Amino acid sequence: MSVFALEGIPEVAAGADLAGLILAAAEVAAAGVAGGTLLRDGDILAVTSKIVSKAEGRLRAAADREQAITDETVRVVATRAYPGGVTRIVENRQGLVMAAAGVDASNTPEGFVLLLPADPDASARALCAAVRARTGLRLGVIITDTAGRPWREGQTDIAIGAAGVAVLDDLRGTTDAAGKLLNVTAPAVGDEIAGAADLVKGKASGNPVAVIRGLGRLVLPLPAADPVTARSGVVDRGAAILLRPSETDMFRLGSAEAEALGYTRGYAAGLAAGLTAAEADLP
Amino acid sequence: MSVFALEGIPEVAAGADLAGLILAAAEVAAAGVAGGTLLRDGDILAVTSKIVSKAEGRLRAAADREQAITDETVRVVATRAYPGGVTRIVENRQGLVMAAAGVDASNTPEGFVLLLPADPDASARALCAAVRARTGLRLGVIITDTAGRPWREGQTDIAIGAAGVAVLDDLRGTTDAAGKLLNVTAPAVGDEIAGAADLVKGKASGNPVAVIRGLGRLVLPLPAADPVTARSGVVDRGAAILLRPSETDMFRLGSAEAEALGYTRGYAAGLAAGLTAAEADLP
Repeated sequence: MSVFALEGIPEVAAGADLAGLILAAAEVAAAGVAGGTLLRDGDILAVTSKIVSKAEGRLRAAADREQAITDETVRVVATRAYPGGVTRIVENRQGLVMAAAGVDASNTPEGFVLLLPADPDASARALCAAVRARTGLRLGVIITDTAGRPWREGQTDIAIGAAGVAVLDDLRGTTDAAGKLLNVTAPAVGDEIAGAADLVKGKASGNPVAVIRGLGRLVLPLPAADPVTARSGVVDRGAAILLRPSETDMFRLGSAEAEALGYTRGYAAGLAAGLTAAEADLP
Repeated sequence: MSVFALEGIPEVAAGADLAGLILAAAEVAAAGVAGGTLLRDGDILAVTSKIVSKAEGRLRAAADREQAITDETVRVVATRAYPGGVTRIVENRQGLVMAAAGVDASNTPEGFVLLLPADPDASARALCAAVRARTGLRLGVIITDTAGRPWREGQTDIAIGAAGVAVLDDLRGTTDAAGKLLNVTAPAVGDEIAGAADLVKGKASGNPVAVIRGLGRLVLPLPAADPVTARSGVVDRGAAILLRPSETDMFRLGSAEAEALGYTRGYAAGLAAGLTAAEADLP
């Protein structure tokens, strides 16, 4: 597997032709490559969500970043006060659990915030269809963003949108090298690819696109991307399958929030029981 | 960045010389490579914890896998019943929060389980020192394991041990391309490297070691690995820095467990208040 950043993507404006910008950068990069084409069949493009958001005009004037976060929030998962504010970890409109709902105020003009793409899988499908149509190559697209996680320090990049590529390498029901059933293993390869891309794109490098080569086994057949028109019969499930529904999530609520909820319920039940018991003791 | 699996690592027995097995496999693989050496300065070896555990004799006869999990548990984080058993997510002796405490019953002989290395950073330091001494190359070592995570489906590989390589690319205090402070960004590059390696090692391929090339910026100077003897002054902090202490973890306890704890406390407080109130009403 090789992973390299695509250099030369310019600043992206609202309405920009992202597929065109990416393919142009690939052509420039390929100028010195034998055959003259940088992209190959089975390549995956990992695209930072920031440029997708910019192309889709998701920059919002926001005097109040906190209000922007509230507007993107579907469900509050946990909050924590820090000197000067409150960190809110929430489930956002895209179904992602993220600090600040994924609302980005870095790398944006003062007084503006950048929202995530409204439907990252749809964004990925459009981009994938465009780069496939223009190159004739079987390409995959993963839209990435950076997220923290419980239990571990630091952040990793994850796949928030995908098209033309399988992001969950479901091995459940298959056997390992020794013939034993691998019954619970389903590597989240989309997130691993997003993380690998982050290692070469880098937070501070300014390269928003990386190419991942050598994982053609995960890239869906042509013409694909669109599950409706795909003649191959392979259903493109996007990155939404990586979202664990809150109902089955053992960490759907922060520990302090869940404990406070339990306390309130327990107090009401205890109070009622205390009053009843006292009454029963009356002569 | 390029990432490739090292083929030809044999089944590992207790007491095996892991550095020798890895370097022998690299030499065989390099037979057709110009210059005759496969590993290069700045390469990172991602090693599946399973073979480290086997070399360290961590295979245990265990009629009762549940007891083995209990023995490795420091703190229960969450439990969930499933048909035929209970999934336990716990903090284990290594400080990792994992299902089944990281006790592995796959790819092991019937009636045996494999425990994680007792001190994965120490294992990484020993392996790193050995491969550095024998090759003279500035190499890094990351020991990987597979883990689930809240909020997202599927598993990713993470860095449970490391030596000679920085696993947290702490950008806090630095600025982005636009000159704005990246004040909270600290990419967990060790976990991203472990995930990238998983994409080529593969759960079912049987290749337990991958080489990551092109991230020399993260590999610490020679002679290093051992923070005490390192003349470079660079402190090798290992993968333990990726462990978030439970005291600062907003998800230190499962939602249901935290709610039950709160309920119990609230009930006791409510009961006392109810009894007191009823008594106060007595004539």
